[in-house]
Amino acid sequence: MKKVSIPKGTRDYSPDAMAGRKYIFSTIEDVFRLYGYQPIETPAMENLDTLLGKYGEEGDKLLFKILNSGDFLSAVDDDQLHKGNSARLSTQISEKGLRYDLTVPFARYVVQHRNEINFPFKRYQIQPVWRADRPQKGRYREFYQCDVDIIGSRSLLNEFELVEIIDRVFEKFGMNIDIRINNRKILAGIAEVIGERDRLVDITVALDKTDKIGAEKVNEELRSRGLSTEAVDKLQPIINLTGDHSQKLESLKNILSGSETGILGVNEMIRLFDYLQGQALKANVGLDLTLARGLNYYTGAIIEVLANDVKIGSVCGGGRYDDLTGIFGLEDVSGVGVSFGADRIYDVLHQLDMFPKKVITGTRVLFINFGPAEEKHILTVLPDFRKAGIETEIYPDQAKLKKQMSYANGKGIPFVALVGENEISKNIITIKDMETGMQKEMTTQEAIRHVFVADEG
Amino acid sequence: MKKVSIPKGTRDYSPDAMAGRKYIFSTIEDVFRLYGYQPIETPAMENLDTLLGKYGEEGDKLLFKILNSGDFLSAVDDDQLHKGNSARLSTQISEKGLRYDLTVPFARYVVQHRNEINFPFKRYQIQPVWRADRPQKGRYREFYQCDVDIIGSRSLLNEFELVEIIDRVFEKFGMNIDIRINNRKILAGIAEVIGERDRLVDITVALDKTDKIGAEKVNEELRSRGLSTEAVDKLQPIINLTGDHSQKLESLKNILSGSETGILGVNEMIRLFDYLQGQALKANVGLDLTLARGLNYYTGAIIEVLANDVKIGSVCGGGRYDDLTGIFGLEDVSGVGVSFGADRIYDVLHQLDMFPKKVITGTRVLFINFGPAEEKHILTVLPDFRKAGIETEIYPDQAKLKKQMSYANGKGIPFVALVGENEISKNIITIKDMETGMQKEMTTQEAIRHVFVADEG
Repeated sequence: MKKVSIPKGTRDYSPDAMAGRKYIFSTIEDVFRLYGYQPIETPAMENLDTLLGKYGEEGDKLLFKILNSGDFLSAVDDDQLHKGNSARLSTQISEKGLRYDLTVPFARYVVQHRNEINFPFKRYQIQPVWRADRPQKGRYREFYQCDVDIIGSRSLLNEFELVEIIDRVFEKFGMNIDIRINNRKILAGIAEVIGERDRLVDITVALDKTDKIGAEKVNEELRSRGLSTEAVDKLQPIINLTGDHSQKLESLKNILSGSETGILGVNEMIRLFDYLQGQALKANVGLDLTLARGLNYYTGAIIEVLANDVKIGSVCGGGRYDDLTGIFGLEDVSGVGVSFGADRIYDVLHQLDMFPKKVITGTRVLFINFGPAEEKHILTVLPDFRKAGIETEIYPDQAKLKKQMSYANGKGIPFVALVGENEISKNIITIKDMETGMQKEMTTQEAIRHVFVADEG
Repeated sequence: MKKVSIPKGTRDYSPDAMAGRKYIFSTIEDVFRLYGYQPIETPAMENLDTLLGKYGEEGDKLLFKILNSGDFLSAVDDDQLHKGNSARLSTQISEKGLRYDLTVPFARYVVQHRNEINFPFKRYQIQPVWRADRPQKGRYREFYQCDVDIIGSRSLLNEFELVEIIDRVFEKFGMNIDIRINNRKILAGIAEVIGERDRLVDITVALDKTDKIGAEKVNEELRSRGLSTEAVDKLQPIINLTGDHSQKLESLKNILSGSETGILGVNEMIRLFDYLQGQALKANVGLDLTLARGLNYYTGAIIEVLANDVKIGSVCGGGRYDDLTGIFGLEDVSGVGVSFGADRIYDVLHQLDMFPKKVITGTRVLFINFGPAEEKHILTVLPDFRKAGIETEIYPDQAKLKKQMSYANGKGIPFVALVGENEISKNIITIKDMETGMQKEMTTQEAIRHVFVADEG
């Protein structure tokens, strides 16, 4: 037999994995909808000029490019056709690429459909993205993102709502989480008051690593990135501020009093925590000044969610961006959004065995096939089960009982229905509980009730 | 502003379209699950050697190929780098392609996972596919397929079950359909008895066009494809058989008595119609000997579904194939399946205005934002609505009332909740019905009940 395989870094999802994934997506989606967010989808392929230059030089290299159809060389100059010219040639023989994230396609969508959109626009989007990253444990070339954003409103109510949504989602999953919040304007204020206003990116990139490498190494990195020793020193008391968020924010008001931007950021955070105070959230929400998330387009709040019971990195994150659509020339569209990491959430729920039991299985009842006469009778009973909404099958072949039972076991079917000559004559069904092994004769209606009760138990 | 666009033949799905699509997919999926089918998903990208050669020469050209990452020219011989060599070069600089249908990836999946699969395997798969077809009205380069198959069982119970599933799905949509059935073995028998056994493909390809071009032109085509006049003459009484399916099948028993294969096919159809007789199907199910569906891999039943009220071609189709996995070297895996055309179903439901009203909208209640004090009060009320499962929003900014009302209208929100000073002092909510314009003061619990009653009405 031929050896068949799929591309490195991609996955098949078998029924068990699908059940878990569907549970995750529908739980997230239900919460999004409860808050008035609506779904959109964009094509897997975007024009390359939509994607190129949006993810940095490294990102451009990680785009999957689609080879033009037909005689793709016809439009290429002969002198381009030589080794070592892959990079240049690629954009001449390819004009489309696979979606790299959901943010840039969303920005493109907003610009393209700006005249139909009812702003503020609350949208969510759950679709796969593709990156030509080197595949490794936990990193895939095809994976799903679940983004939720509201654009066209600067209200901090939106930040608050997203934090509440995060809390509700993980409450539904039964996951313990910490929600960390920071603000880009505060970071900018800090850079300003330590006299390194132009090094904000260096500072945030380094700060972002505090969790991973520790304060010591971060300071080293800051110096190696060219920050003066004085600036690094000035930074320490800020990084090591203690107390709860209101105490920290109170201190920051003084520290950042020389920076207009910094004070704006502090006030935004005071407002946001004020909103949060009024609500009974399950998660801890804290101010984390080392949080930067590497991304350069956040302009206000930065949000990150960590799972408490499993070491797996962030399971959700996002923030406020004031210039989502600026890359396509539509200015002044402010938005805020977060993205849920479905793969990591799957891993946490799987590792902690937290998927609801009912999610795992599909079929509830399998009717054993003893032969044509029994089959004929069963076909008159099946519709009653299905009308009651019970997933029900009949084994399609008259195979050995053992084989049919093993099929039920393999598929995790909790009940097997046995209908032979005896049952037909009495117009009953023998229901076997596959977990306990107990068998019992019942009428059709009793059997249907029996399955329902078991489902609720 | 830059002009932004998406690749030709692809589409963005806005919230309204998404609502309709989700309704279609979940309706289909619910029926699949009720019959014990389980979902799988496969990667968007497959290795090119999995895809190439499976769809004919024309199909190979329509595959979207992914340019290899990095220095893709490094592995190419210099003498390959010249104009006019696109076809050969393409497989040297590309080793992956986008999924062209769900059948070949499913075959690959079955072979790759054969040791984990619990046969007979009932699976469904709802995913997009990509084809570099010339875009035109109703034909896209990215579109969804919804496939449902059972493999590893030769029982005709499976064909019956799929016809029943088709009936249930379209009953749920409220669509009037005809289900046409044929059998490849009968076609082969016919080719045999008219003395043109080797021209089965020519015959089926021509017959498949009967609906489109008429019997006359089909006969012309058959002759031009090299069938003898005698054979074409012999074919006429068969094509023009009258009566219901049992009369037709009775006649065919005689006509095909000289063909073992033909008689096998007739008996399969008798059996299938026997199963169908026992069930109260809503759709007409008929035997249609001109049905061939062009596809060459069907070996038994061939199924096609036509919408009665809209001229749109087939909305579902499929059949029995005895050799799905043979292309990958795993012999003797028989299966039967059908594929639902989600795009066409969408067009029918849209054209006939048959989407359930509740599907169209998302948010049920919008709270108007009059300012900070009102906002604060509303935030204590909102959780009650959401806990009751009602999709509820507060307008995030303190905008003019007119703007907020127009947002509600644009989003199709049926109820607007007005909470001002007066309402706060009385701890009530004024609910405005956006359809009738009527306003009424209510307590929170009354308002929640009011929205529920409206939803059920």
